[in-house]
Amino acid sequence: GFIFTRHSQTTRIPSCPHGTSQIYVGYSLLFVQGNERAHGQDLGTAGSCLQRFSTMPFLFCSTNDVCSFASRNDYSYWLSTAVVMPPDMAPISGRALEPHISRCVVCEGAAMVIAVHSQTTGVPACPDGWMSLWKGFSFVMYTSAGSEASGQALASPGSCLEEFRAVPFIECHGRGTCNYYTNSYSFWLASLNPRRMFRRPVPQTLKAGELENIISRCQVCMK
Amino acid sequence: GFIFTRHSQTTRIPSCPHGTSQIYVGYSLLFVQGNERAHGQDLGTAGSCLQRFSTMPFLFCSTNDVCSFASRNDYSYWLSTAVVMPPDMAPISGRALEPHISRCVVCEGAAMVIAVHSQTTGVPACPDGWMSLWKGFSFVMYTSAGSEASGQALASPGSCLEEFRAVPFIECHGRGTCNYYTNSYSFWLASLNPRRMFRRPVPQTLKAGELENIISRCQVCMK
Amino acid sequence: GFIFTRHSQTTRIPSCPHGTSQIYVGYSLLFVQGNERAHGQDLGTAGSCLQRFSTMPFLFCSTNDVCSFASRNDYSYWLSTAVVMPPDMAPISGRALEPHISRCVVCEGAAMVIAVHSQTTGVPACPDGWMSLWKGFSFVMYTSAGSEASGQALASPGSCLEEFRAVPFIECHGRGTCNYYTNSYSFWLASLNPRRMFRRPVPQTLKAGELENIISRCQVCMK
Amino acid sequence: GFIFTRHSQTTRIPSCPHGTSQIYVGYSLLFVQGNERAHGQDLGTAGSCLQRFSTMPFLFCSTNDVCSFASRNDYSYWLSTAVVMPPDMAPISGRALEPHISRCVVCEGAAMVIAVHSQTTGVPACPDGWMSLWKGFSFVMYTSAGSEASGQALASPGSCLEEFRAVPFIECHGRGTCNYYTNSYSFWLASLNPRRMFRRPVPQTLKAGELENIISRCQVCMK
Amino acid sequence: GFIFTRHSQTTRIPSCPHGTSQIYVGYSLLFVQGNERAHGQDLGTAGSCLQRFSTMPFLFCSTNDVCSFASRNDYSYWLSTAVVMPPDMAPISGRALEPHISRCVVCEGAAMVIAVHSQTTGVPACPDGWMSLWKGFSFVMYTSAGSEASGQALASPGSCLEEFRAVPFIECHGRGTCNYYTNSYSFWLASLNPRRMFRRPVPQTLKAGELENIISRCQVCMK
Amino acid sequence: GFIFTRHSQTTRIPSCPHGTSQIYVGYSLLFVQGNERAHGQDLGTAGSCLQRFSTMPFLFCSTNDVCSFASRNDYSYWLSTAVVMPPDMAPISGRALEPHISRCVVCEGAAMVIAVHSQTTGVPACPDGWMSLWKGFSFVMYTSAGSEASGQALASPGSCLEEFRAVPFIECHGRGTCNYYTNSYSFWLASLNPRRMFRRPVPQTLKAGELENIISRCQVCMK
Repeated sequence: GFIFTRHSQTTRIPSCPHGTSQIYVGYSLLFVQGNERAHGQDLGTAGSCLQRFSTMPFLFCSTNDVCSFASRNDYSYWLSTAVVMPPDMAPISGRALEPHISRCVVCEGAAMVIAVHSQTTGVPACPDGWMSLWKGFSFVMYTSAGSEASGQALASPGSCLEEFRAVPFIECHGRGTCNYYTNSYSFWLASLNPRRMFRRPVPQTLKAGELENIISRCQVCMK
Repeated sequence: GFIFTRHSQTTRIPSCPHGTSQIYVGYSLLFVQGNERAHGQDLGTAGSCLQRFSTMPFLFCSTNDVCSFASRNDYSYWLSTAVVMPPDMAPISGRALEPHISRCVVCEGAAMVIAVHSQTTGVPACPDGWMSLWKGFSFVMYTSAGSEASGQALASPGSCLEEFRAVPFIECHGRGTCNYYTNSYSFWLASLNPRRMFRRPVPQTLKAGELENIISRCQVCMK
Repeated sequence: GFIFTRHSQTTRIPSCPHGTSQIYVGYSLLFVQGNERAHGQDLGTAGSCLQRFSTMPFLFCSTNDVCSFASRNDYSYWLSTAVVMPPDMAPISGRALEPHISRCVVCEGAAMVIAVHSQTTGVPACPDGWMSLWKGFSFVMYTSAGSEASGQALASPGSCLEEFRAVPFIECHGRGTCNYYTNSYSFWLASLNPRRMFRRPVPQTLKAGELENIISRCQVCMK
Repeated sequence: GFIFTRHSQTTRIPSCPHGTSQIYVGYSLLFVQGNERAHGQDLGTAGSCLQRFSTMPFLFCSTNDVCSFASRNDYSYWLSTAVVMPPDMAPISGRALEPHISRCVVCEGAAMVIAVHSQTTGVPACPDGWMSLWKGFSFVMYTSAGSEASGQALASPGSCLEEFRAVPFIECHGRGTCNYYTNSYSFWLASLNPRRMFRRPVPQTLKAGELENIISRCQVCMK
Repeated sequence: GFIFTRHSQTTRIPSCPHGTSQIYVGYSLLFVQGNERAHGQDLGTAGSCLQRFSTMPFLFCSTNDVCSFASRNDYSYWLSTAVVMPPDMAPISGRALEPHISRCVVCEGAAMVIAVHSQTTGVPACPDGWMSLWKGFSFVMYTSAGSEASGQALASPGSCLEEFRAVPFIECHGRGTCNYYTNSYSFWLASLNPRRMFRRPVPQTLKAGELENIISRCQVCMK
Repeated sequence: GFIFTRHSQTTRIPSCPHGTSQIYVGYSLLFVQGNERAHGQDLGTAGSCLQRFSTMPFLFCSTNDVCSFASRNDYSYWLSTAVVMPPDMAPISGRALEPHISRCVVCEGAAMVIAVHSQTTGVPACPDGWMSLWKGFSFVMYTSAGSEASGQALASPGSCLEEFRAVPFIECHGRGTCNYYTNSYSFWLASLNPRRMFRRPVPQTLKAGELENIISRCQVCMK
């Protein structure tokens, strides 16, 4: 019984890879931010797949035995889809949110599941005797409001996202709105030239269309 | 050989669930804070169960080959019991600390152990073919001095605390004292109405006696 | 198929312990710091062993579909060796970096691997029926530029470093340089007297030569 | 033309001290918090007295020439009155806010205005040749959501608050609500015994009724 | 002898207002960021006008009597001009920097200089008996790399910028480069409707061309 | 009546410069740190000269009308003297503290006092018609425990320290101890070559004996 999670980065519920069975499906939670501090869920674990979505899936309690729900300025962040936002750049809410939230599935396999990263633009092979579950892009960490940050364990399938997006997640607020903000950053392993390992890195700025040329590829494998 | 930890949130040493065997017992460490930064131990892992308690279980070292123990302003945080503090709200120390520190046991099971969360006030069922170890409340994250924070992996048994307390942990200092402070916050998954998933959350403030009506329940399961 | 990582803290590639087999070898990544926030890799996992070294192994992307590599002020931190720095304390770069970066190996064992900590200066025994892989010192957390911090799961083999160093890691910059800085701190479990568990900790300052007298020892064990 | 501000900590507009003339009146802004960072206005300056109140008196702009008002999770903090909150501890909004917001006046004097602090429970005298404007309690700094903090220049009249309150300010949100939260802390100069200056401070915990026994007093003086 | 600073937000050296005399001219420093913490200079003071520009105008020193210049990842931020960046969005350096850095002048007047803010889109009048020096837009605070922040005292002439720009400053690095980044945010006082002071703020998103409709105006006045 | 402060950086009480008169004398407070956030006092203002020293000169209060003095892990930082610490590097306390704390005097002059900085190793001249009060080194900012930071307004006499020290301040704790720590950093304006203003800064590392060659000089002037 080894449990892992797969995210579609679309509104379609992903299927469990061949040889594994579905436990439950949900919505792709990346991290929560309470009292201005972030706490991430590894995207390879069941904790990143919540069965119920809400812009505010949690509450807080304090010393005087009082708990508060959605009454202060907290955040949740979810993996998102490729659906474009309305042109006025205003926050969205209500039913309009649904097309933007990625779906996920929690699966059970017979053996351990790992990610391997090539640090090149080529997809790495699985270790001998391991089978491929999916291939993707090497996702390391992210920052958002207040530069609060969390990240992925590179050994976890959560560090291998099947779709590359410059900002693969959306920010949601307790007041019921979500939006993309310019201070959301995503960090990825880079494609590196092995002959330049101990040389000074050459700064580069890449724009849409060239991005896949510099992001490391990965593969998720099961024994 | 799958290892997990169980916490009693009392001064009683908890027992390993049926079908698992005890490795060792200890005190329930939640996180340490050094140089004003927090680092948490997942409550579902052996790292959260230290065999020896101290208000200062760690030390720090720096570049000039000097290490310092208990000589600067660091913190440790431990799961606590329901024992009430003295009415003068002053910090406690020495033998008076012992009734406030939760005990734990590290157990070994034959298969993987996970937590499942209902996001309702009902306890969720274990997946088919998994047996229940315990049920509890869905603990997500916490903040304390300086709003430093850490949290639980929701897939880990550490995210399913058997007792709900508004502030389930106590703060301890290198000078040998512990106390509860008003800027300690705990964060829990909320009970959500599935028909309101994409609706604006309704702010709520709940006081002692009503709190269990809004906290998500969970179950810890073993294959 | 249980995967773990071993670090030599030298330029020598470590061997996989008896009874386990090598998956791949690499360089010992401790954590990355982007947009002034740190994200650590557990030293016991494959994510801490990158097959290719670079002072800047990652890049960042933002909302306008632009990604930037090595063009802003980010950091990477690597486990280092005992090789001393040049006496002028200036940053090093290029080929001169290689002797300072620790090597690692990712291994596969047939069963789970854990660390146990004694909280004394004696090496703890493995649980009954578990075999020893290596012994070391109990490494808890670290802080560096901006006091950004991350740490180890004490249940992971990554929390048991075979060599004790007051600062076991080196800081590298996107401009191709690395150096040690005085605001790098390492945190270790302390050796504690069990008869003084609920007593006030006695502050101590220790210098080179005495340090091993106060650091907790650990052992990494496999079922 | 020396400008300073006086705050009533009530809903009454304060008067300018004898010998000074009124410039304008307003509401007592303590600090704003945007993108999870606080920026304080010194309470002795005109910047802390805004002619118009709003729970969200500011907006933010970013690189793509977009500005957003009240659409993300920002905060403003205002000096408050002694009016008690409703017993259900829920946030308040709309007209119900008005009784809780302190009023202020910006005054012009002919000479410089300073605060002097006694570090005792006695009100200090003004320097020779300076006249008293008001006396109060020595307010140093404060922290709130996310422990974000700012403070007062002790030389400024803003560091001498006429009323002592354990939490002299209220937190407001862009959604139109305000409330008191347990992680709001205020910091004050303490009353010190001059014969114990180089002795170890004796920890003390004081409750309502005893608080004025430990807070330093101050006086605001004009040449 | 009252000293204040005026910034042109162009490469032209501004003139001192009528009735004041020039002390020296320089480059418009907004803030420095060292060891990942920001420290701002109030734009109304002489500290924001450095006679010499450098992407790294400062250095740091530490306990072992070592100082380092430009060898670690620090930042400086300067008020910038309206000159557009090259279309490839890559950082600029060397002589190409000069057109982007605002110039300033430090002036001496016979009396105190203050800013007044209307919190409307109309320019406020100076208090009776005060003369106008310039009018502008009400600049409150800013955040940048790592969300580090600082701000302006609203009573200071530095809070009244003559040109409104969504991001009025540029980020520079010790390696000699400068650029604009999407996580630079500026915060401004908003234009408010006095009849809605205690009403819920209406969220708004404004784009280029509409921005001046929502920013508060200000005037700088001298007695 | 213009008030400013002068610090001796020795245990000797400094004298007020010719033409100014003494208001009171005290101890040189640099900043306080409460709930892990720093708040600095400008060294040029009276707020940086406290008449009474204590390792814990302040207390904190919270929402439930409780105030606590010296019972949690707060800090104060003071300008220090050149007296060397004991060789065992252990914290000092009690009477042994007195030789390490700088003394200060608050003075009143007839006109405004400013600092001017040369950004070279030469002391700058005062503006025409201003007289010199003292000359020094250009002190910008500092960071300490948790990298908490504050700084000086460069227009204030507090930014011109008469003695250069790599770490000019000492850290004190509520438990009554003080010490120097390796993560205390000071930041100073650098000496710059005007012909290289728009050139890439050349990294430099300087050790004791060379430090004055790279620190900018300053002069404090009164009209």
